[in-house]
Order: sequence, then structure tokens, then C-alpha cells
Amino acid sequence: MAKARRVGAVLPSMQTHGSTPCPCPSFRLRELASMYFTMVAVFLVILVVALKGSAPRSTYFPYKVPLDPQGLLELSWNVSYPEQAVYFQILIREFKFGLLFGMSDRGEFENADLAMLWTDGNSSYFGDAWSDAEGQLHMDSQQDYQLLGAQKAPEGFYLVFRRAFSTCDPKDYLIEDGTVHLIYGILERPVHSLHAINISTLYRGLQRVQLLKPNITIPELPSDVKTMEITTPSIVIPSQETTYWCYIAELPDSFPKHHIIMYEPVITAGNEALVHHMEIFQCSAEFDSIPHYSGLCDSKMKPERLNYCRHVLAAWAMGAQAFYYPKEAGLAFGGPGSSRYLRLEIHYHNPLIFKGRRDSSGIRLYYTASLRPHDAGIMELGLVYTPVMAVPPGETSFILTGYCTDKCTQKALPTDGIRIFASQLHTHLAGRKVVTVLSRDGREQQVVNADRHYSPHFQEIRMLKELVAVFPGDELITTCTYNTEDRSKVTVGGFGIMEEMCVNYVHYYPQTQLELCKSAVDPGYLHRYFNLVNRFNDEEVCMCPQVSVPQQFSSIPWNTFNRDVLKSLYSFAPISVHCNKSSAVRFPGEWEKQPLPSITKTLKEPQPHCPPTPGPHPAVPVVKLCLGGGKGFQRS
Amino acid sequence: MAKARRVGAVLPSMQTHGSTPCPCPSFRLRELASMYFTMVAVFLVILVVALKGSAPRSTYFPYKVPLDPQGLLELSWNVSYPEQAVYFQILIREFKFGLLFGMSDRGEFENADLAMLWTDGNSSYFGDAWSDAEGQLHMDSQQDYQLLGAQKAPEGFYLVFRRAFSTCDPKDYLIEDGTVHLIYGILERPVHSLHAINISTLYRGLQRVQLLKPNITIPELPSDVKTMEITTPSIVIPSQETTYWCYIAELPDSFPKHHIIMYEPVITAGNEALVHHMEIFQCSAEFDSIPHYSGLCDSKMKPERLNYCRHVLAAWAMGAQAFYYPKEAGLAFGGPGSSRYLRLEIHYHNPLIFKGRRDSSGIRLYYTASLRPHDAGIMELGLVYTPVMAVPPGETSFILTGYCTDKCTQKALPTDGIRIFASQLHTHLAGRKVVTVLSRDGREQQVVNADRHYSPHFQEIRMLKELVAVFPGDELITTCTYNTEDRSKVTVGGFGIMEEMCVNYVHYYPQTQLELCKSAVDPGYLHRYFNLVNRFNDEEVCMCPQVSVPQQFSSIPWNTFNRDVLKSLYSFAPISVHCNKSSAVRFPGEWEKQPLPSITKTLKEPQPHCPPTPGPHPAVPVVKLCLGGGKGFQRS
Repeated sequence: MAKARRVGAVLPSMQTHGSTPCPCPSFRLRELASMYFTMVAVFLVILVVALKGSAPRSTYFPYKVPLDPQGLLELSWNVSYPEQAVYFQILIREFKFGLLFGMSDRGEFENADLAMLWTDGNSSYFGDAWSDAEGQLHMDSQQDYQLLGAQKAPEGFYLVFRRAFSTCDPKDYLIEDGTVHLIYGILERPVHSLHAINISTLYRGLQRVQLLKPNITIPELPSDVKTMEITTPSIVIPSQETTYWCYIAELPDSFPKHHIIMYEPVITAGNEALVHHMEIFQCSAEFDSIPHYSGLCDSKMKPERLNYCRHVLAAWAMGAQAFYYPKEAGLAFGGPGSSRYLRLEIHYHNPLIFKGRRDSSGIRLYYTASLRPHDAGIMELGLVYTPVMAVPPGETSFILTGYCTDKCTQKALPTDGIRIFASQLHTHLAGRKVVTVLSRDGREQQVVNADRHYSPHFQEIRMLKELVAVFPGDELITTCTYNTEDRSKVTVGGFGIMEEMCVNYVHYYPQTQLELCKSAVDPGYLHRYFNLVNRFNDEEVCMCPQVSVPQQFSSIPWNTFNRDVLKSLYSFAPISVHCNKSSAVRFPGEWEKQPLPSITKTLKEPQPHCPPTPGPHPAVPVVKLCLGGGKGFQRS
Repeated sequence: MAKARRVGAVLPSMQTHGSTPCPCPSFRLRELASMYFTMVAVFLVILVVALKGSAPRSTYFPYKVPLDPQGLLELSWNVSYPEQAVYFQILIREFKFGLLFGMSDRGEFENADLAMLWTDGNSSYFGDAWSDAEGQLHMDSQQDYQLLGAQKAPEGFYLVFRRAFSTCDPKDYLIEDGTVHLIYGILERPVHSLHAINISTLYRGLQRVQLLKPNITIPELPSDVKTMEITTPSIVIPSQETTYWCYIAELPDSFPKHHIIMYEPVITAGNEALVHHMEIFQCSAEFDSIPHYSGLCDSKMKPERLNYCRHVLAAWAMGAQAFYYPKEAGLAFGGPGSSRYLRLEIHYHNPLIFKGRRDSSGIRLYYTASLRPHDAGIMELGLVYTPVMAVPPGETSFILTGYCTDKCTQKALPTDGIRIFASQLHTHLAGRKVVTVLSRDGREQQVVNADRHYSPHFQEIRMLKELVAVFPGDELITTCTYNTEDRSKVTVGGFGIMEEMCVNYVHYYPQTQLELCKSAVDPGYLHRYFNLVNRFNDEEVCMCPQVSVPQQFSSIPWNTFNRDVLKSLYSFAPISVHCNKSSAVRFPGEWEKQPLPSITKTLKEPQPHCPPTPGPHPAVPVVKLCLGGGKGFQRS
């Protein structure tokens, strides 16, 4: 047990156990003939922690997520920012002949970075591998997954290893903030080499997580904290892949103003792999009552008023932990001017179509009557929901940008500014990246939130690593990248699932009147674009005023010129700014035909940091393991 | 002497001399406090070749160039393609207190990769360093210049070291094909640390070379080879920085057809650092005689007919060696239909304004009457010299592309194709990069020639590493990148020095009728662009037909939209193709409004190859040297 402590949260110095005898075939470092070993000296330093006799204690791997919907594989992990490394522990409940675990840009099995564990029937091996564009596996010439332990326990087989965020090996995935697409596969028969593995025949899948959890201090809860569980009544999860369940809950009569200061998921045991994400929305105070409901969100039976329950109170997604408000702030609910009705929405992801599973999951709110100094607020950054912002079909990475301008923050923010502490990124199905940057006097200052592997299927509220202070006159620029490769028609901005959005909901304090700070291209300049396309291409694009913007976009022949010029338009034309108290009420001022913020200094791309890893470059590519006994492994 | 052989051309395995005693203060590996040494183990392997008692033999460093105009520093080098490394030898004629030698994108002293040799008065040190954007020096945390030898000799001090082409260290320069900008500086007083060096006060400069000379077999010369020297009569090099000297030479009467099969520079001893480049042009056969002349090329006294001497027979630039034609081909000269007159042009670069230096440099032609199977030919690829191809002002890297289309090669090349063996890239002053790629059926096949650090001041004819076969139906796409940051007006295509060109003169065999395969944007589409700019920007760009293209370009307000749309135009609009037998005669066919070649598969960027270097990562950053005796150096 004492040794297990050496892995995980505290991450003290580790020990090597190089000389302990082992009962099974001695462990050797195997040189692969295909690799280059012309170097003067090859040496190996592997940090080993032998995990003996009992399971590693879960507290040292504070983050946990099931990898597959059957729950055969469970990932726990920890992040060491001083070491710039992630420690992984995988529990394989029924170990067969090996495991493939790795990361790739968007969860594909091609061009992936992999940690491989496999056995040929006699011996087992662990190594760093990669898959090429055809999905064929190869050993990596530089070994960057460092095996720390391998051990049997009653509940399954544990594998513990470490990976630096950045390895500077072009075959390796760069672990960044935001979403990471993890992939897994189970080997169901022995293999004699990686080349013999046909990835497409494996039991396999992907799981999205935020690997680099922020390293922030959790504020203490006050003594008068109360809890309230907003959970579905015991329902049967529909036997279909995707279900959005809606449930209306109600606060007590005359419930006074409180601060929500924390919330956490409540998941029915056994359904951990099915509950994909959950949100609690507060309904609009304009209705005195909202009908009770428990059913599908897209049902025709759903009362129309549920559509007015859109103010986010809490949001959780798979892999997320409890959400704590900073100690200075809480999210107000209850009291006059606040609706008593809450809508719980649960996304069940049931790809194996389990039948008859009962569920009563939901969210537990921790709240207090001792109000904290500040009410927290939520502000929408990004693009206005309007068809003037459009993405041509067949684009692999088309960028749209929404601006919260200096003029708006000047008008709407207090002199002392606000502090952003969390952020939830939002697009519809074509979204691939979202980044918000804070700029001051034309110079980019810092990234507010960035997800370069964003998925519309994984929209968590994420705590920021540090508070971002925004002052009057600052600019907040939100950039969304879209992929429309599989579309044949233009995608315009709007509310529909096949239309697009570009939003960053930032959570901040103290609350201000500014609810919305977004933009869209000036419609007059868009009209000039339609004109120009018409004349340049000898095509008949109807520019008659009675034709709608989506119709005009639809008639454009999408050749490279028309695509390029649309990009040029969006990065040149003045904008219409929505600097609003609520979605309908603007701050007073002139907000049309505003100049685009000019950026004179951009943030540097972070230089990949390649720390002197304990392993050599290139390392001996394979570590042979002893999996027969309960003794862990060693090197000879 | 035997040991000196171990460095250089053959590059066999090297020996370490780790334990030989040394008479001066013992050599130690010094750890710099500012570096991170948290690694588990730090170790060092330095390959050492002790150069004792005599100078390294120059034959092992076959390439040589003076670094500075006084000839105080002389660089020799060799390239090992198996090792993917360059071996450098620097001769410092008067060693003072150190040397700075390195590489940077375009010869600037900021953001440069440096090998540093310095002494604090007692001891001397060697290390890999870099300069930041302000020109401040820093030791590199990864040491990639490997010291191989350091030694005194009667003629000066020799320093020998090695650098891999690619190190994967972001602080290091990537050594690529084409031009490399070398920089040097001499330390004239002792320094105690790199931080104390103020680069701007050094005796310093830059030298351009092609470091990665192609590794090709030199064909044997036939027994009947004759030589002819085309050299200036003994002239006095003018005491000014830049001189272009023109001299007319004459072939004997009734000189029959011969093949030039090799040529080499003839440089007057002592002027090696002044003769920058030389070319021999053959005059046009349309004139029976050309007046004799020896004088400045830009003199008003120069006979006008010399302007008709433009057919390149030979070209040499500093750092280049003898130029050998492939054994199957020679360059025809002499015989009927060939002018007897040759123009020698020498560019003298005399920045220190030496006075009274006499010179009779030139080129020695090796030719034979036993004609080889093929006449060699020269073909012009790239852009037509026309103002329709323009670069806006203030651009850091604006790209123009010229196409030799499938239709033209289909019409003009023989079924068996042609073989390109050499290439000379050409732009005017704004040119920064030139690349020609061969494409077949829309798929890029190979790079014909690429210079990503191209300088208009260094236009050698370069042998290709391998013959490039071009068949009917192939496309040759030439891309030039321009920098107009320091210009306030548009730069249009044309002959003037402030206008631009984008040309690759390819040398090939067998000679065909195709002399010119170039393109330019269709003028009608450019007219649509002027129209569009006019309407979109509410500006008055006069589109009247009587206004010239340069005038129309001059009246454009260069905002981002107009820039972007010009780029879009050039990558979309059809082209006018010049598929010509000579500059005036086109092959029959329709060459106007041709579609741009579409590329469905581009060549992959070469992955930086980071071989397992003998030195560790990160290495111990400084090697302390013994420079007092004649014994070379060792490690302790």
C-alpha cells in the first residue's frame, strides 16, 4: 500500500525496482529490428512502481470515467502540472489478450497515438505505438508512454503509466487544455506483432474527456450549506441510442434568494456509462406556472412553455466532477423575480441499446442562505444567431469570429471590471474548435478558454485555470472553426440544429446588466458581397430585396473565389454589435457599422515544451511484462 | 595526418580520446546554473578527433568560401547524407578572443542559431547558442553543434565541428536545400559570459552559400577535352561596393560546334572574397559582329548591342564549384547559327572599398568536339513578364504562381520526355522563396528545385540531387514568395529592377523547341477584379480602357479586402499560357483563358528527421577548451 501511494496526486519521487527476482520468464528489453539503433550508447531508465497485492487507491487518481458503454474499461487519472505530465490508471475488468488506449484529434483510429498492451500467449508487452492514415499500427521509435505498474486484483487488471503533455515526437498527440478524444480497443486473441492487429475488428470506441483538469483550490463549504437533489423520478431509459429526457422540478413556495455554491452529479449506480450529460435550466419568470412533465424533450406531448426554461443553473458532462463557485460568489436562485420552476435535461447515450434500465440520476445543488459578496452572472460572447454569418459547404476548417468590442465593455462593465471563472463553449454540429481571447488596446492578452478539439457532443461548463479579469475597454474575441465537408448546401447561422452558432457562455462576477456581447457582419456589406459574386461569376444570384439571406446564400456557386471572398468579407467588413441587457434590450449607443477590432499583437503559439524525460530518446521500444503472477513487473 | 583523415569526405567512425593527459588546465564539462538539470542522469558522449601538428587536409572539406571580405575567416565544409549532417571547418587567420558563427533565416543576427567560441582570458569555451529577437545571446539547452577539433597552425586557428541538418530543437536552424545565410562575428576582447556580448559592436557580416551540395558522381572528362579561359583582361576593380563588369570575348573564326561539358571559376589569387558571381552569355546570332568592350555594364559608353547577349552559357557564384554536365549531354556552342561573341559579366562585391586591386578572373570552359548523345537546353518556367501579376505593398509573404501546363508539355515534349539536371532560380529584389514542383494527373510528384531562403543576390545554377524526368502531360508549377514590407506602392511584374519576375531556368536534355513555358492571369478576369474593387470600396478606380494595368493597380486602396481578393483572384482565375518556341513564337493551339491546373494531392512537408545524435538531450552546454598548446583538445 505504501508503494501505491507513490503514484498519483502527490507524485513524489519514484523508486526503481530493477533487481527483484521474478518467477516468470525474465523481463527483457527487446530491440525491434526495424528500428534504428546506430547510436553510440543506448540506455534505459524506467521509473517503476511495483503495485503489489492490492488495488491502487483510487484517491490518487481523482478523475474517473468509464471508457466503454459496458464499463469493461475504466480510466482514472491525475495531472501533474509541475511535471507537465498525466498519470493514467486503466482498470480492465476482464483482461483478455491486450488493450489499445490512446488519443487522436477527434477520436478516429487513424493517425492516433497509442499505448499498447498485448500478449502473444506466453509473454506480454507494453509499448508506445501509433497508427498511420490507413489504421495500421507501428511501434514508435521514441517511447513516451512510461509504464509504471501492471497488476492483477480481484476486480480486474490495473495498468498504470505516465505521458508528458508534450513529447516533441511528431507521432505523438499533444495533450492540450480542453477536450481530448480518447480511444480504446480490446484484443480478444493473442498477437505476435502489432502489424497483425486489424483495428477495425476490435471491440473499440471513443470517449471524450477534459484530461487537463484545472489545478484550483476548492473553497470550503459554509456550515449552513443545504442540499437539494434535482433528479428524474425513476424512469426507464429508452432503448435507443440517443435520448434527451426532460423533467420539471419546482422550488418550494416563497423560496427566498439563495446562492448555489456547488453542485455535483447524482448517478444511479450501474448507469455511469449511459448518463452522458445533464443540465438544470431555470424557467422564465414571466410565467406564473410551468406544467409538470417527465418525458422526451423532443416529444410532441411536451408542453410548449418548457421552451422558456433556458437560463442555465448547472451543467454536468461525463468525466466532470463537482462544480464549485469561487468563494466570493454564488449563483442566485429563489426570491422575487425568479421562477420557481427548474427543467432538468438528461442526455442518455445508449449505443448498445440496453433495455429496461431504470434511472433516477440528476444533480445535487449545494446552496446557502448566507449570501456571498457577489452574485455570479452568465454572459454570452460570440456570434449573433443570424443567417448573415454562413459557412460554405465542403469546408474543412472555416472560421467565423464574434466580437465583444471595447465600446461595449466600456459602456457596460464596472470600473473594477469583472472576473470570469468558468466557461461553456457552444456550437451546433459543424463546430470543431472554439477559442476566446481577451485583447486590450489591440494587443492580445490571454486566452479566456480554448478547445482545439471541441466537440458539440461534449459541452461542459469548465472552470478556468485562473480568474480572467476583464476591464472596461477590453475586447473579447471568440473564434469558431467549422467543418462542413459532408454538406452539400451552405450552413447559415441560426437556432436550428443544421444551422450554426458560435457562443461562449462565460460565468463571472460581480453580475452586471450585460447579458450578451456579440456581433455579426454588417448586412449592407453582405449585400455588396452578393452583388460582387453575381457580377464576377456571370451567375444569376438574385439580389432582389424580397429574397432572404439564406436564399441568396443558397444560390451561390461555391467555387474557390466565392469562398475566399466570403472569408475576406468576414475579416474586413464592419460589424453590427449586440451589446445587450437582455436578448431584446440594447445598451444605448450606436452599434451598427462598427469597425472590426484591429489586433496589432497576437499571442504567441505556446512553444512545445519537451522536458528531459526520464526515458531516453529514442528509447527501447518495448517493455516485456510478467502478467502471470501478482507480483507486478520489473526490468532486467 | 592519419587522424585528420577521419574528418571529412569519407567520415568513417570516429574515436574518442577521453583519457589522454593535457598540459593546460584540465577540460571539464561545465553546468550552467541557468539550465535545468533535473533529469535522472546526465551524461556526455563527445566524438573527438585530435588534430595534431599539422593543418587538416583541405581535401576532406571539399567546399570552401571566405566568410568576410577581408578573408580573415575561411569556411570549408563537407556534407554527409548518410549521417544527415554537415561537417564545418573554420580557419580563423588571426584568432583574438572568439568567434560567432551561425545560420539564420535571411542572415539577420536576431533569432539566429549560433556556434560560439569564446575565451575569458584564461580558458576558452565552445557551445551551441542562439540569439533572441533583440539579438541577445543565450546558451542553448540542447547542444547540437558538436565540437570535433580545435587547433593552432601556422596559418591560423582551426575549429572543426558537426551539425545535423535537423535537430528538432526549436532554437536551431533547419539546414535545408538551397541557400543558407551564414553569419559570423569576431570577438575582439575577452568575455566572461555570452550575456556580456553586444552583437552590434562586433566585426561581423553574412555570407550566402548552398550548404547541402548535391552528392552526385562527377562524370569523367574525355581525353580530347580542350579548355578555353574567358577572363577579363587585367582590370582594376573599381573602389565602390557594387560593380558589374562587362567584357566581350570572341570565339575563333569558323569555330565548329562543340559541347561544353564542364566549367569552373578562374579567380585571381587574393580576390576570392571580392568576386561575387560571374556569368558567360552568348550573343544573338542575328548580328554578324558585336563591338569589343571591357567596362562597367551600366556605363553609358557600353555598346547597345551588348544587350543582345543574353543566352546563358555558364554561371558561377561564390561558394559554387566546377559545373559538370551529365555524361549524356553537353551545351552546344560554335558552328553555324551560333554567334561567335560571348559576354563575360562579373559582379565584384567590394564593401570595404579596396582601391587598386587588379583582377583577371573569369571562367574556364572545358569543351569537346566529340559531341555527346544530347544537346542540353535551357527552358524558362514561371511567370510571364507582365504587369497583370502584381504584389501589393506591405506584404510579408505574398505568393505568385506560374504554370507550365499539361497541354503545353503534351504538345512540346518528346514521348520519352526530358531530364532536368540543373536549375537557376530568378526573381528581382522582393523575391524570398522560389519552389518548382512537378505534378502529374493533378498529383504532385516531386520538388524540381526549392529554395526557401532564396536571395536575389545569390543566383547560382544548381545541379539537382537527381535527374527529374518530365513527360508529355506533366505540369511544372513555380511558386515565388515576395516581401514588400518596405514598399509603399504596388510592385507589378516586368523587366525593371523594382518590378518583379518569377523564373526558374531549368537545364535539361535532350534539347527541344520549347524555350518558354510560363503563364499569367487572364487580363479579362483582372479587369473584373478592378471593377469589383471599385464597386465594393466606393472608390474611384478608373477602369477606362486607356488606363494601363500598372496605373489601375496604383489607384487601388490596399485594405485587407482588396489584398485578399487579389490573392483569391490569382488562385481562381483562368490563365494565359505562353508555350513558346522562342520569346515571340507560340506553339500552335489555344492558350488563352486556360483553366488553372487542379492539384488533388500535394507533397507532404518533409517530417523533420531527428536522428539519435551522439550527444545527449539536453547535453552539457559548454565544452571548455585548451587553446594554449598545439595539442588539440580532449574531455576529462
